[in-house]
Amino acid sequence: MLDGVENVKKEHVKIFALGGLDEIGKNMYVIEYKDEIVVIDAGLKFPEDDMPGVDYIIPDVSYLVAKKDKVKGIFLTHGHEDHIGSLPYIMKEINVPLYGEKLTLGLVRAKLEEAGLLRQAKLIPFSNRDQVRFKHLNVSCFRTNHSIPDSIGIVVDTPEGPIVHTGDFKFDFTPVGPKTDFAKIARLGKKGVLALLSDSTNSEREGYTGSEQKVGNALFDIFQQAQGRILFATFASNVYRLQQVVDAAVRYNRKIAVFGRSMEKVFQIGQELGYIRVPKGTFIEPDQVQRMPKHQVVIICTGSQGESMAALSRIARGQHRQIQLIPGDTVVFSSSPIPGNTLSVNRIIDQLFKLGAEVIYGNEFDIHASGHGSQEDMKLMLQLLKPKYFIPIHGEYRMLAKHKELAVQVGVKEKNCFVMENGDVLHINREEAFIGEKIPAEIILVDGHGIGDVGNIVLRDRMKLSDDGLIIIVMTIDMKRFKLLAGPDVISRGFIFVRESTDLIAETEGRVKKLVEQLLEQRVKSWANIKAQVIDDIAPFIYRKIQRRPMIIPIIMEVDKAKVEQEKETATSQTFKK
Amino acid sequence: MLDGVENVKKEHVKIFALGGLDEIGKNMYVIEYKDEIVVIDAGLKFPEDDMPGVDYIIPDVSYLVAKKDKVKGIFLTHGHEDHIGSLPYIMKEINVPLYGEKLTLGLVRAKLEEAGLLRQAKLIPFSNRDQVRFKHLNVSCFRTNHSIPDSIGIVVDTPEGPIVHTGDFKFDFTPVGPKTDFAKIARLGKKGVLALLSDSTNSEREGYTGSEQKVGNALFDIFQQAQGRILFATFASNVYRLQQVVDAAVRYNRKIAVFGRSMEKVFQIGQELGYIRVPKGTFIEPDQVQRMPKHQVVIICTGSQGESMAALSRIARGQHRQIQLIPGDTVVFSSSPIPGNTLSVNRIIDQLFKLGAEVIYGNEFDIHASGHGSQEDMKLMLQLLKPKYFIPIHGEYRMLAKHKELAVQVGVKEKNCFVMENGDVLHINREEAFIGEKIPAEIILVDGHGIGDVGNIVLRDRMKLSDDGLIIIVMTIDMKRFKLLAGPDVISRGFIFVRESTDLIAETEGRVKKLVEQLLEQRVKSWANIKAQVIDDIAPFIYRKIQRRPMIIPIIMEVDKAKVEQEKETATSQTFKK
Repeated sequence: MLDGVENVKKEHVKIFALGGLDEIGKNMYVIEYKDEIVVIDAGLKFPEDDMPGVDYIIPDVSYLVAKKDKVKGIFLTHGHEDHIGSLPYIMKEINVPLYGEKLTLGLVRAKLEEAGLLRQAKLIPFSNRDQVRFKHLNVSCFRTNHSIPDSIGIVVDTPEGPIVHTGDFKFDFTPVGPKTDFAKIARLGKKGVLALLSDSTNSEREGYTGSEQKVGNALFDIFQQAQGRILFATFASNVYRLQQVVDAAVRYNRKIAVFGRSMEKVFQIGQELGYIRVPKGTFIEPDQVQRMPKHQVVIICTGSQGESMAALSRIARGQHRQIQLIPGDTVVFSSSPIPGNTLSVNRIIDQLFKLGAEVIYGNEFDIHASGHGSQEDMKLMLQLLKPKYFIPIHGEYRMLAKHKELAVQVGVKEKNCFVMENGDVLHINREEAFIGEKIPAEIILVDGHGIGDVGNIVLRDRMKLSDDGLIIIVMTIDMKRFKLLAGPDVISRGFIFVRESTDLIAETEGRVKKLVEQLLEQRVKSWANIKAQVIDDIAPFIYRKIQRRPMIIPIIMEVDKAKVEQEKETATSQTFKK
Repeated sequence: MLDGVENVKKEHVKIFALGGLDEIGKNMYVIEYKDEIVVIDAGLKFPEDDMPGVDYIIPDVSYLVAKKDKVKGIFLTHGHEDHIGSLPYIMKEINVPLYGEKLTLGLVRAKLEEAGLLRQAKLIPFSNRDQVRFKHLNVSCFRTNHSIPDSIGIVVDTPEGPIVHTGDFKFDFTPVGPKTDFAKIARLGKKGVLALLSDSTNSEREGYTGSEQKVGNALFDIFQQAQGRILFATFASNVYRLQQVVDAAVRYNRKIAVFGRSMEKVFQIGQELGYIRVPKGTFIEPDQVQRMPKHQVVIICTGSQGESMAALSRIARGQHRQIQLIPGDTVVFSSSPIPGNTLSVNRIIDQLFKLGAEVIYGNEFDIHASGHGSQEDMKLMLQLLKPKYFIPIHGEYRMLAKHKELAVQVGVKEKNCFVMENGDVLHINREEAFIGEKIPAEIILVDGHGIGDVGNIVLRDRMKLSDDGLIIIVMTIDMKRFKLLAGPDVISRGFIFVRESTDLIAETEGRVKKLVEQLLEQRVKSWANIKAQVIDDIAPFIYRKIQRRPMIIPIIMEVDKAKVEQEKETATSQTFKK
């Protein structure tokens, strides 16, 4: 079915993702009916190691920009970066109302203010008692439990039936903070749910995810037994966990010092908005830590994922200005390493042990509970809502596939389960469902100070530079007289040389000299041509000799014009942003 | 105590590692008494992502080379790469007898033959009935269970008492293959053990490691239920696992095709030496796979760790010449991803799901059991042997630290437990133990075709090149007349440019020009000096502008001498190997 062409007999609701499928990160889900579009979440994603130098990745919203007038609003399920992080970039392109719970909007407000976009933004409080009515679509929500307060699931009521989006969730029967709104969820299920979009993150894990209360109990044990200082690292956004640390600190007479910008911010916003209660006098300034008796101190810090510039990592490296680790310190990693961070975290733990700390980490002591449900949580959600159609979201492909298996186990027809990819458009109504067209769902790479079109050439450059180093071949040419004045000279970086035998540099220089002189004799005028031929000749030559493929950069300097040829076909033709 | 100086009253045995402590890999342990040295294992290590372009890392044996005449032999605990992998390199420097069990020597033989070193090597069969007597030291061994057949623990009897080295082990009460020699171990404990060196790999895991038999049962279930083809990936060296696959295949009427060089080699050597029994007619050729009915095929392949060129990875990418994945295929990952490989493995699994395969992986189905003992296995070994001194080995620091905790729990005095690093020399006898001198325990990096001294400069270069790209600043200078003839010109690679505003390239060029003209006016003759000042000026300037730290490479071309200054302080002063 073509976009925009509607069959006179059947209306369909269109559901698709611009981010969040086949990945963890940059969640953005779109529900479209006739001339109305509702967006759920606007997140960012952190790149993996195969994108060196890229800070984050955001969804491409060109589809939404093209249909600006149809977009009624962005509904935010909670305040994690993978759900709100791309707003500062997206808001520059489409400025629509943002709906969210109190803490979510508080975090969004801080972000937009930092980006200078707050003034023109419309932030509308949205909670479980609210209904937002558009012409065809009504949007409401229900409370859920997650690892940050004020998480909600979204209900989009359409003329074909309700579509439920769980947001990130788990079921916690003894939560810190408000309970999941079971009654509302059950009522939705009873009335009938057309389609369910549900969080697939932990679909590979059996059983239920543990309660936050178990962690609280474990913390009390640790705080009671630790004889020296406690250093406590956790996800900064886990306000509930921080409340439990505060409670344990108060119970066992420890003052709290906070290190790490994101951690300080959360305590600030959290207290302002009433999400964290810290009795007066509990906090101490960083510089007071030294003066306190050791058993009366707990240091809450960033670094639970081994982030190299975070407080705990610097402490482990002995590079923190204010805190030096002392033998007898207890360090708690109240977290779970995200795959990809495991090696960094392990190294920090090794280093802390070497410095004489007692380190508590891993699964042994209930010091962490995930914010995402496991298989039984997911099956419970499916049972409560009994959707006709099921779309697993928020997961890498295998997580989505496993979640689909669970749905089938619980009774959803296999043909009504759709494991999709970003950009696949699902058309549904009461009678049928099919995947129609594919919308381009590109990614935008953000680096340094601004959004850059990093593009594949620059990234491939970087990867190549890393793997086998590079060879620079410089020569000075008088282009008026077609004469080679100086060079070619070979300079290398990132090469491994072995001391024995052949002078490969001299060989390379000789070879290039011969080639270039030949080309100049033929009055070849084009720099690009000369350079391309040098690369085409030298690359296989080098590989034959040493089985390595360094990047080869020929540089031609013209003495007459005092100017080096600018390569128009590469990144250097673009200019810097100030 | 100085090396070589012995106190007239007290003799000590010296124990140290040249590799294997504070790391997983390149195991090499040394026991020295008076004029005798016995070495246990000679492994290699695979680099992590922070060493791009390096193939493997081997221990530096300069200490042993300097004392060549004292080295009586290298005793090999088993045939894994991290225990025998550096032999082809080390044997070039010291040629001493190699002792090992049958399969171990079989694998060593193949390695040395490939390296052209077999003819001069002395390979001496060594098993649990053997005693090798030197002047002061006697060496014997005992059978253990591990994930490769013929694994042994080593006993070095010294005048001060026996030293036991466990090799890699777990306790398996229902093993495939011979049982652990409990009786011998218990007897050793009864007689008294001076020091125990024990495998720490899984010291963070509670309980016992599961039996290989559980895996066999799980495989039978999978082979019975799978309706299409089975693709089975596991560690090539796990001969017991391969035997279980063969048994399941035979039981459920499936023919076996083997893909992947290391896998083919293991089946070949394994059958030759009698470690794998495969009934005639079980194997089929790769090209016969297509013609078999799907439910009668199992494909055993490499790629369980997501290695990009391994068979399964190429199949997942659709790049395998002979095997295309068909929906309905069952893929079994009979393995556990080594930390650092998790992302690669996850990506392969995602891809296989996308191609319609049913993928069995992870902890759900008992499809894998580790070859290393968990906490209870370790405590059992400690209880059986009751050593006076304890040295945890074969682990990253936190694993060693945890293993020490277990030893203390079991009753070894804390002051008699030594968590050491490579090169720390432990001096022990019946009365005392202390860490004395530190031997240099450098690492040797192996790249491409030969052993290269990669060194830190080249590696840092590579890392830097990758992260933020690079800027090349080229200029042509007449050094006789101290004149800047051409440039400076800025060329970049791996940079992200943002299209708007300031021409940072022009700014950089202007800045360098000013600086260099200044230096030339002052008659600065030294290239190194000029370049260093350019870097020192430009690096902070670039960072202030765009928060990036690209590598900066100033290049000075002398037109007069037609020669670019060779940087003597960097890798370029070394020459290539042909």
